[in-house]
Amino acid sequence: MYADIEPEIFKTKKGNPMPKHFEQAPGLHEGPVPETEGYVFNQTMLRIKDPERSMDFYTRVMGMRLVRKLDFPEMKFTLYFLAYLDDRQAGLVPADDAHRTTYTFGREAMLELTHNWGTESDRDFAYHSGNEEPQGFGHIGIAVPDVYAACERFEDLKVEFVKKPDDGKMKGLAFIKDPDGYWIEILQPDMLEKQRKSS
Amino acid sequence: MYADIEPEIFKTKKGNPMPKHFEQAPGLHEGPVPETEGYVFNQTMLRIKDPERSMDFYTRVMGMRLVRKLDFPEMKFTLYFLAYLDDRQAGLVPADDAHRTTYTFGREAMLELTHNWGTESDRDFAYHSGNEEPQGFGHIGIAVPDVYAACERFEDLKVEFVKKPDDGKMKGLAFIKDPDGYWIEILQPDMLEKQRKSS
Repeated sequence: MYADIEPEIFKTKKGNPMPKHFEQAPGLHEGPVPETEGYVFNQTMLRIKDPERSMDFYTRVMGMRLVRKLDFPEMKFTLYFLAYLDDRQAGLVPADDAHRTTYTFGREAMLELTHNWGTESDRDFAYHSGNEEPQGFGHIGIAVPDVYAACERFEDLKVEFVKKPDDGKMKGLAFIKDPDGYWIEILQPDMLEKQRKSS
Repeated sequence: MYADIEPEIFKTKKGNPMPKHFEQAPGLHEGPVPETEGYVFNQTMLRIKDPERSMDFYTRVMGMRLVRKLDFPEMKFTLYFLAYLDDRQAGLVPADDAHRTTYTFGREAMLELTHNWGTESDRDFAYHSGNEEPQGFGHIGIAVPDVYAACERFEDLKVEFVKKPDDGKMKGLAFIKDPDGYWIEILQPDMLEKQRKSS
């Protein structure tokens, strides 16, 4: 099938079809899965206690944009969809609500925050980060051009750290907490590559 | 700043600068945040009990590709990074391990699965999905071109459902479970738009 489309890209140097994966591991399915063509990893959903605090954090501190908000008054919850969009991408987002909903659900890397109405005024209410027992979900991760500059700014903004960039064994990556205590990894894509070159 | 670059895109019809967000909500920061330029929502990390089951599920059932695997023998864990890549995108992934690490950490929408060695042989070991108490993380979501076709296939493959597409109040979207019990929303981007038109 690959050969029909663009043989120079989809064959390795030896003329074999491109392998499906870039690593080996038990359980990997090597064949094509045509039924999943067009699938997109669209969203990650976290419950939040107080949308005002979360909007402030994700837009002012983290620099994301609120793309869509969907209210479900009968079920008393609201969904907030945030993304990183540069100005050019933002210029392509549909202004029409219905079209923007479709855009929101079709795009990669949307952060969906769910607010069940009322939790913000319950002083003792808190969500579970997944990093204490019982463990499960770990974190979301934001790639930044300069991890040290990003973390200096987070410190100035009084963001809570789980790990500063040079704490512990793994240097050059940090973990901060969002207003609900969810962990956010702050990483610089080329850090490992740089560290291996200089060591 | 916008005007310097491409005025026809970055101004509204009335000539005002494009608003930062597409919705209004308390807490939203309206000004630009130049310090976060280049930030990317790179990853979502979930802990998994048994990598062989998870690799089979995410590559055979969900159709993702394993892009990078990083072993940390001193700390006895392995990280698996999966993504949806079409053949053209896959052809652009660096073959060199160090470059592929940088690629992995710079791209949107990577699913990171963490395996702490040994959990797979502990019969009673289980991770927490975040949807039972204590709640927190909700789900990841995969957009598919046809939610009914996708779910018929998942049924054939004996995938466990939390909600079939037409169960409950919200029609046309489903939730399935991954091997650890994490919820995966299966959604069709234009479903809400279609339903509103036809109602």
